Amino acid sequence: MQVGMIGLGKMGYNLSLNLKDHGHEVVAFDKDSSLSEKISAEGIQGVSSVKELVSSLSKPRVLWLMIPAGDITEAVIEETSALLEEGDILIDGGNSNYKETLRRAEMLQAKGIYFFDCGTSGGMEGARNGACTMIGGDAEVFKTIEPIFKDITVESGYLYAGRAGSGHFLKMVHNGIEYGMMQAIAEGFEILEKSPFEYDYKKVAKVWNNGSVIRSWLMELTENAFSKDAKLDGLKGVMHSSGEGKWTVETALDLQTAAPVIAMSLMMRYRSLEEDTFSGKVVAALRNEFGGHAVEKK
Amino acid sequence: MQVGMIGLGKMGYNLSLNLKDHGHEVVAFDKDSSLSEKISAEGIQGVSSVKELVSSLSKPRVLWLMIPAGDITEAVIEETSALLEEGDILIDGGNSNYKETLRRAEMLQAKGIYFFDCGTSGGMEGARNGACTMIGGDAEVFKTIEPIFKDITVESGYLYAGRAGSGHFLKMVHNGIEYGMMQAIAEGFEILEKSPFEYDYKKVAKVWNNGSVIRSWLMELTENAFSKDAKLDGLKGVMHSSGEGKWTVETALDLQTAAPVIAMSLMMRYRSLEEDTFSGKVVAALRNEFGGHAVEKK
Repeated sequence: MQVGMIGLGKMGYNLSLNLKDHGHEVVAFDKDSSLSEKISAEGIQGVSSVKELVSSLSKPRVLWLMIPAGDITEAVIEETSALLEEGDILIDGGNSNYKETLRRAEMLQAKGIYFFDCGTSGGMEGARNGACTMIGGDAEVFKTIEPIFKDITVESGYLYAGRAGSGHFLKMVHNGIEYGMMQAIAEGFEILEKSPFEYDYKKVAKVWNNGSVIRSWLMELTENAFSKDAKLDGLKGVMHSSGEGKWTVETALDLQTAAPVIAMSLMMRYRSLEEDTFSGKVVAALRNEFGGHAVEKK
Repeated sequence: MQVGMIGLGKMGYNLSLNLKDHGHEVVAFDKDSSLSEKISAEGIQGVSSVKELVSSLSKPRVLWLMIPAGDITEAVIEETSALLEEGDILIDGGNSNYKETLRRAEMLQAKGIYFFDCGTSGGMEGARNGACTMIGGDAEVFKTIEPIFKDITVESGYLYAGRAGSGHFLKMVHNGIEYGMMQAIAEGFEILEKSPFEYDYKKVAKVWNNGSVIRSWLMELTENAFSKDAKLDGLKGVMHSSGEGKWTVETALDLQTAAPVIAMSLMMRYRSLEEDTFSGKVVAALRNEFGGHAVEKK
């Protein structure tokens, strides 16, 4: 199958190679022309504009966006959809907010363009050798692009999830679960670190990965991390986030659903970004006010 | 190696068969004599008292307790240790609180008995075919019993964790992590269930198990559960707990360590045990007091 790939960052680049390995013809574009050139050296046709990309593809075209969610995706969908024709297929493989996806699906449907939202998990390694994808969009048209998903994912690693938006929604919730699982693992190791015992964390993660109830890919990554730096002395415990956890919590609020562990995981990330907190000052001041308890001054 | 097994419940029974499969000679006792008889039919010597068990073993004896934590373990350790002699080895394979383990290790050390605490994970299936174990106790003496652990666990599935108590402590934290991971997974599915989309949860769990970041044994069990009952309609959402999660939170408090996700997972279990809550009544009453907001009356 012929696929036009827009975005040759870590995910799009690896996905293009993955597609090529499976006999698909990839035409690729990135606004950073050095990436289009780099991938040309790997035997994939790199082009220098979205326009060139669209005109290089046979109809009905299949375009895959692998670009950051938000303004960039919005701009690229706008630019691309102006060039596409009825019956063409546009896949957003990024982590777009499902509400944006619902809006875009409606807008593109009015133009006769089939829009698919594809949540992608498994990191760079997955993009290269076998990812996990969750796809929303038209059920009938999906069958025409299904072979692509079958090829680029691991065995049983793709799911047609339902109508437009259901793929990105599912990926969002996946990431919310990921936040909670990571925080649970992290709190466990924090308790071990403060315990009266001397554990070898790499060995702990390893034994927990072999036969235990909590064996998981995240625990494998934990083992990897401790094998590189036994106590993670080289790191600061600052936990950034990139949106999906926040969206999961916002969605839980919209749906009036209790999801305290996912919410707490997100807030612990926010807390980690602060050296000191205003809330801490308020509590310290209040304890001092009512009980004369000592405060620490700057 | 010759091993005396006390306790032939789901774990001890399967572990005995596992030991036998690996060429160890098991002498087994359970206070429920029908279990001792049942295991005799499987070619394992079942005896009718702790005294008979101890006298059946060659010195230095190796005894394995696979019995419920708490009073039962305390009573059996008391009874057993009175019969054991200097140099004998006593393994507590149950989920004892590590503080009890520390006390017992000291008490038994005074008698010259080597006490090992062994946290066991992987459920019945693990006990039968390959468990995950975390062991605390004397490092030198551990070497003499190490072959047992190598045999009954999966590849890389045992860890000598350090001095007495470190095995049960590690297992306790493992279970705390398990609480958090399970609650995170559960909250994710709750959000899907309240979402505007129609997901097939069995398929969702399956795709998340193939190539995604959250792939894990718990997600495999989630897939199993949904394959038996697509929406879990046959269940009530009542979440019992058996102690280790509570101990993990108590330990986090003792160590003045923030573990909000594990604590919240535990409290969501407690919440699930209540049909209605007193705290809910208090909040409803207060909203009515200050704002005249409607309350629901019985």
